[in-house]
Amino acid sequence: MPRSRELAQANLENIYRIFTVPEAPDSTLGRVDQAISDDLMGFLQDHIVAVERDLDEIEGDFSRSSIPEDPTYVSDYTEFLKEKLVSQSVHTASPGFIGHMTSALPYFMLPLSRILTALNQNLVKVETSRAFTPMERQVLAMMHRLIYSRSDDFYSQWIQNSNYSLGAFCSGGTIANLTALWAARNRLCGPSGDFKGISRVGLVKAMQHLNCQGLAVLVSRRGHYSLGKAVDLLGIGRDNLVTVETDENNRIDMKKLREQCWRLKGEGILPLTLIGIAGTTETGNIDPLEAMADFAAELGCHFHVDAAWGGPTLFSDTHRGLLKGVERADSVTIDAHKQLYVPMGAGMVLFKDPATLSSIEHHAAYIIRRGSRDLGSRTLEGSRPGMAMLVHAGLSIIGRKGYEILIDQGIERARRFASRINAHPDFELVSEPELNILTYRYIPARIQKILAEATAAKVTEINEQLDKIIEAMQKRQREAGRTFVSRTRLTPGRYKGGAITVFRVVMANPLTTEEILAAVLDEQSEIASHPDIQAILRQIKF
Amino acid sequence: MPRSRELAQANLENIYRIFTVPEAPDSTLGRVDQAISDDLMGFLQDHIVAVERDLDEIEGDFSRSSIPEDPTYVSDYTEFLKEKLVSQSVHTASPGFIGHMTSALPYFMLPLSRILTALNQNLVKVETSRAFTPMERQVLAMMHRLIYSRSDDFYSQWIQNSNYSLGAFCSGGTIANLTALWAARNRLCGPSGDFKGISRVGLVKAMQHLNCQGLAVLVSRRGHYSLGKAVDLLGIGRDNLVTVETDENNRIDMKKLREQCWRLKGEGILPLTLIGIAGTTETGNIDPLEAMADFAAELGCHFHVDAAWGGPTLFSDTHRGLLKGVERADSVTIDAHKQLYVPMGAGMVLFKDPATLSSIEHHAAYIIRRGSRDLGSRTLEGSRPGMAMLVHAGLSIIGRKGYEILIDQGIERARRFASRINAHPDFELVSEPELNILTYRYIPARIQKILAEATAAKVTEINEQLDKIIEAMQKRQREAGRTFVSRTRLTPGRYKGGAITVFRVVMANPLTTEEILAAVLDEQSEIASHPDIQAILRQIKF
Repeated sequence: MPRSRELAQANLENIYRIFTVPEAPDSTLGRVDQAISDDLMGFLQDHIVAVERDLDEIEGDFSRSSIPEDPTYVSDYTEFLKEKLVSQSVHTASPGFIGHMTSALPYFMLPLSRILTALNQNLVKVETSRAFTPMERQVLAMMHRLIYSRSDDFYSQWIQNSNYSLGAFCSGGTIANLTALWAARNRLCGPSGDFKGISRVGLVKAMQHLNCQGLAVLVSRRGHYSLGKAVDLLGIGRDNLVTVETDENNRIDMKKLREQCWRLKGEGILPLTLIGIAGTTETGNIDPLEAMADFAAELGCHFHVDAAWGGPTLFSDTHRGLLKGVERADSVTIDAHKQLYVPMGAGMVLFKDPATLSSIEHHAAYIIRRGSRDLGSRTLEGSRPGMAMLVHAGLSIIGRKGYEILIDQGIERARRFASRINAHPDFELVSEPELNILTYRYIPARIQKILAEATAAKVTEINEQLDKIIEAMQKRQREAGRTFVSRTRLTPGRYKGGAITVFRVVMANPLTTEEILAAVLDEQSEIASHPDIQAILRQIKF
Repeated sequence: MPRSRELAQANLENIYRIFTVPEAPDSTLGRVDQAISDDLMGFLQDHIVAVERDLDEIEGDFSRSSIPEDPTYVSDYTEFLKEKLVSQSVHTASPGFIGHMTSALPYFMLPLSRILTALNQNLVKVETSRAFTPMERQVLAMMHRLIYSRSDDFYSQWIQNSNYSLGAFCSGGTIANLTALWAARNRLCGPSGDFKGISRVGLVKAMQHLNCQGLAVLVSRRGHYSLGKAVDLLGIGRDNLVTVETDENNRIDMKKLREQCWRLKGEGILPLTLIGIAGTTETGNIDPLEAMADFAAELGCHFHVDAAWGGPTLFSDTHRGLLKGVERADSVTIDAHKQLYVPMGAGMVLFKDPATLSSIEHHAAYIIRRGSRDLGSRTLEGSRPGMAMLVHAGLSIIGRKGYEILIDQGIERARRFASRINAHPDFELVSEPELNILTYRYIPARIQKILAEATAAKVTEINEQLDKIIEAMQKRQREAGRTFVSRTRLTPGRYKGGAITVFRVVMANPLTTEEILAAVLDEQSEIASHPDIQAILRQIKF
């Protein structure tokens, strides 16, 4: 038995040590810790390998299924981690990583996260969170105010009134959207007379009570996939998530929305919720929220806005108007781990009426008792960390004006990148950036001309070829590890309903420079010059 | 305008700085960070105020509802945090804090958490998580193996087979339980013939298809409150969460369970899932899992085990047998932020059959595409952090034998505390520790005698008086801040169905010594000597 193994043998004293003796500053883990504190960007640059290893190979490093019998030295484990995990992770903070909604974080988030982990509070109840409870309520009130701009009196009344909630904090936008639809459903089918309410008797009896065949949720076809999960979970069914067609700017078509509602009515199906999107995931567009609010009022149904991405646009004096109407929503989702620049795992849903969340209220004998101030009585999740602290820190340290700069800069950067694409002969801008997201594709000038004059059938055929090229290019660019854009499928109006594959770019990282944006297109042009891709392109003819 | 405010004015350069310039080691936040690294326990001891401030007062510090317009210096914010939040948080790591399921954490969790935050991966998709994806799959396989002990061949086949999942990682036990019931429901009501499945058409049509009136979930009355949320969300309804009576050891009464199932059958309601509990939240007892597995097989229904707390008992050669039968469960919930000693926000659900989670599979155009290896296609949550890394670290560094020691010690400690309570004339042990949780109450010897000879009505009357005392004592002990136990309501057999309020103790912190346990009872005796409490006690007579 090697000496290291012998020393590492589990015994009471060793186990006790890991709970009582801090990692020494000159230990392997201590040094990594220090390196991250001193220079995070340098650490990531030095330790994350740029060029992708094949995923099959990486899987080989994580193929053992049995739990190790004996303990391992922290130093040995740290070496493993550096070599096998950190090196093969994704440099999400890189300014050239403009394909997804993760960005560099403000430096102060790192030490503050350490405080959070050190305190290890559990926000389900006051007994394990104390001051974190009113702090989270404050964060929810601040975000509520950002959206709804109610009076000082309103907030004085509700901010710390533990019988009600201005919103719920959660792990992310999916849970936020689900919470909103759950509350809406339970409110629509709440107790009345002999009917004890859907929460107690379930969906089947609720539909009998309301004398309808089912419920429907309506959203544009750009709606986030979490909504599909929500209607599935809630027993509504994915077929009753009615995805409405959009106009050429990826905004819900109000006429089509009305038509769908009439159709549902004819089928005895009740619209539970209209969902407006403020910043579609793929294209960053904003639905006509004002018109949707009008229509929801006309229907008498819940109006939810999924502003997971676009919500923080409200910080900007310049761009706030794009979300006009959001203040009429019954509920609004905002993700803090997106444009509030908080680490992963922080979402929120805000409710116009502080009583809405009462429809999902629940209690237990040992915590979240009736009359307690425990946050857990009106959240979907139970035990959860105090991530609200990091939102509180962001709002305080960056301030409204700071976030405004970040938002304004992101939109400005997206517009400049759009101009760059428009000016380039071999790229086509597919969706204009209304916020800081845009899509485009590679399509050499020669083929643009062919496409302009082709028949519908020919257009489809060419687009299928181009789709393959875009997909291959996106993968190669990712694998090379210098810059990264994502890809999706869209159905832009100009191709008459046909879907095409496009590059998708999200401009959230404040460190992304003009040079990097130029480099993204240069790299793509270079990738496109690969013989395999050129061979496909050459086949495309008039 | 004060100079500090002037300097803090938002401008592009300042905002850029927070993303590029690390906190200086000698800054306020840098020093806090260092203090935590050097000596976490000392930091918590020094900075968390022991004696509770009134919550109303604390709320006053978080009463502002508007987002600050201007940025704040990080140092100023850190001072605020220390003074108003950290000082008034809960010292969950204190060895005298034995009332809830939070404990001290191994020291290595702190620097590893920093690495996690620094990398800020998003595990919904490979493009933002790379090696974290196979690592999380490995963790799930390891936990699966701990429960199901399948062969090497089995794990070679499934561990990295991205078309299937051995389980789902999530933020905690609530989402884990919900995921299990969701998958069970969708599997029971899966597509067949013309029926497109509940996922698409919803619960009403699924019930018509199955020709039944509704679904039911059966669990003992010690079941976790998250199950109530789950049946509510899933449209099943809380009335169809059938809470079955328990025996005198808080384990489900199998006879009563059978009776309930017959009753449901008579009402045309189909049992969806039986839920066994491995470590009830309030008393730490384990249901007769083997008998439940038999009965579930007889019914042909899903068998879920909520082992959020007790799952890690499987690490112990001595105590593993208590969970006999768990390996027959279709799904099992385990929380990592409980007895795996990982920071808050890490839960898992494991599935015996790698195909079960296919019933909730979903896709989108820009990520989690069909055929991709993205974890998000079979999880309830969307974007989420790589907490699995900390579980991976715990399993590797502590090892099976290390966790065994922690489990064995906790159970041993609970037994010793139980002996101490039994030996004390003024306390009554209410539930024996089967694992490391027990309940007891304060009841002076004199009143124990009265109770032994009292009529049923008199017993109820006395218990009501004692309930008030236990509640008052628990609050005073918490407020004094030296030690902490929680409280709940139980219906022990000896009081013929009457509910009583009890102290609840969870022995998870390895730093809790015999001296601390003695101090807990001493402090409670002292609190009980308070004239207010003695006055109530004096009124209790034969």
